[in-house]
Amino acid sequence: MAGAWMGAEMAEQPAVLGAFAARRSELGERLRAAAPDPLHGVLLIARGSSDNAAVYGRYVLEIATGRPVGLAAPSIQTLYGARVDYHGYLAIAVSQSGETPEIVTVLESAMRSGAVGVAVTNDAASPLAVAADVVLALEAGDERAVPATKTVTAQLAAFAVLAEALGGLGCSAADWDRMPAAVQAVLDDPDPAAAAAEVIGAAPGIITVGRGLLYGTALEAALKLKETTSILAEGYSAADLRHGPIAVVERDFPVLAFSAAGPAAADMHALCAELEARGADVLRVSDDPAAALSLGGGASDGLPEPLAVLPATVRAQQVALALARLRGLDADAPPGLTKVTPTT
Amino acid sequence: MAGAWMGAEMAEQPAVLGAFAARRSELGERLRAAAPDPLHGVLLIARGSSDNAAVYGRYVLEIATGRPVGLAAPSIQTLYGARVDYHGYLAIAVSQSGETPEIVTVLESAMRSGAVGVAVTNDAASPLAVAADVVLALEAGDERAVPATKTVTAQLAAFAVLAEALGGLGCSAADWDRMPAAVQAVLDDPDPAAAAAEVIGAAPGIITVGRGLLYGTALEAALKLKETTSILAEGYSAADLRHGPIAVVERDFPVLAFSAAGPAAADMHALCAELEARGADVLRVSDDPAAALSLGGGASDGLPEPLAVLPATVRAQQVALALARLRGLDADAPPGLTKVTPTT
Repeated sequence: MAGAWMGAEMAEQPAVLGAFAARRSELGERLRAAAPDPLHGVLLIARGSSDNAAVYGRYVLEIATGRPVGLAAPSIQTLYGARVDYHGYLAIAVSQSGETPEIVTVLESAMRSGAVGVAVTNDAASPLAVAADVVLALEAGDERAVPATKTVTAQLAAFAVLAEALGGLGCSAADWDRMPAAVQAVLDDPDPAAAAAEVIGAAPGIITVGRGLLYGTALEAALKLKETTSILAEGYSAADLRHGPIAVVERDFPVLAFSAAGPAAADMHALCAELEARGADVLRVSDDPAAALSLGGGASDGLPEPLAVLPATVRAQQVALALARLRGLDADAPPGLTKVTPTT
Repeated sequence: MAGAWMGAEMAEQPAVLGAFAARRSELGERLRAAAPDPLHGVLLIARGSSDNAAVYGRYVLEIATGRPVGLAAPSIQTLYGARVDYHGYLAIAVSQSGETPEIVTVLESAMRSGAVGVAVTNDAASPLAVAADVVLALEAGDERAVPATKTVTAQLAAFAVLAEALGGLGCSAADWDRMPAAVQAVLDDPDPAAAAAEVIGAAPGIITVGRGLLYGTALEAALKLKETTSILAEGYSAADLRHGPIAVVERDFPVLAFSAAGPAAADMHALCAELEARGADVLRVSDDPAAALSLGGGASDGLPEPLAVLPATVRAQQVALALARLRGLDADAPPGLTKVTPTT
């Protein structure tokens, strides 16, 4: 069946995330032991889906550490040859395969310039892992579908663990313990995603939007939709969308909006009302049980926002897969994409 | 005539940029005097078009200073209430009007946390300017069209001046002196933009792409196209496009590709060949005279990449305006957009 690998890999997420969560104390200890003290800042190095996970990481790490956290612009090192001072920095490189050359190059460059290097990857023997001071192995297992799923949510969990280790996340052990079940509840409830795919139908484009901790999920939703269906999907933060791009939202334009109870919820609520006033088809993914794409019928109720991101991201994967199936496309192998992208 | 303001404001750019370039020594002196010594890093605070200018700023400032430069995620301060340590940082807030509340809030927050604050704005009496330690007034004059043009290129020039003052840009006085004429040459040569608009025609979507110093221009091109025509335009770096989104590029899909002689040119050349192999309609904006959208018939020849960004960005504006006219739309006043976007 088309998209069988993607569906099977999505189904592994509760187990992968549960196993990862169980290792979080040990991983946190190793990170704390290796991190610069005092910590001056954090550099995140990633591309593609990993970059979307890093956007989430940027928020939770900056909030947790109270230090500037930024995403690398690899060409500054790889093409322009600049040397940037990273003394006192933690440089965290994220790559499913650990094989993208530019990610390895930028991590090595940051380490030569003073950073402590961390590799977040599935393959603890990859060039990226070999280059790093500390390896945070995701242990998500082989991923065969081109659109990454279980690796992405494992990366999100890795950033949550990093933030918890380096300052705090505001989640209890009980919250961590119930997170895999919240993800399972979304997987067990595919009908809302199928209904959303019907609403999107043959639309040429879609906008995805989130804010704060769910901004990375909006970006990842757009990327999954593009990869699986070639729809023109663009992800925005709520504020960025208002600064011009909202011009593309006309009557019946589909918008996939991500929110969870927390500091950004009110702004997302206001934005959804603005979009509905324009006549958009707003499809809300939220822990609010009234949302069209609620998160597993209450299984995410009260899950703190940093962990509610995980079932919300699985909802996004589910919508992408459902739309691919509706359109008769093979989500596993989009035309012209390969599993490892050899950018330099 | 529809788009008359936008066209008139675009036409002012050689004069605005020439006047700004003439003030660059004095502006540079004031910035050097105010900047932290030693400088630990730079924070850029912006939304919309200003954010695209800041992406350019991120590259030239990180290359010039050898210190981490990052773009703010405003909600970390405005919604999540985090306090991030910015001692030793220069915080540069960029806003045409100087009135967007969240930009002012984030600058004030960074200054309370130790940063020296710089406002880059058109209005030296705006709340943003009042909040800052140093004001870099663009003096671009009133902008009446909703899509910002002369303010954006003035912001790009401001970042070039900042980079020159804080470490170096690799441009001579003669390069600065001829830059306004290179911009004028693009304005005097509108036919390639009109031809590009014909190629785009009624396409529902377009991708814009650049790398390194021209990545911000690709983002700005996408925003101008969205604002003026509601086309689904998304901007990418060459490397990010390869990591998944290239899946949307099918036969006859229009792509606007930006490059200039410099470290990123070879990668852009390779990407354009890949896109053409997919059957895309690749419209190249480049200082290469062989490009369909060359930069003013040789007027940009030999202009260093940091300044070649200016005529290239004007080409992007020209394509957006030409497409709006072709589609019978009023570029000056896109439906549902306002000049000052009051995000918080």
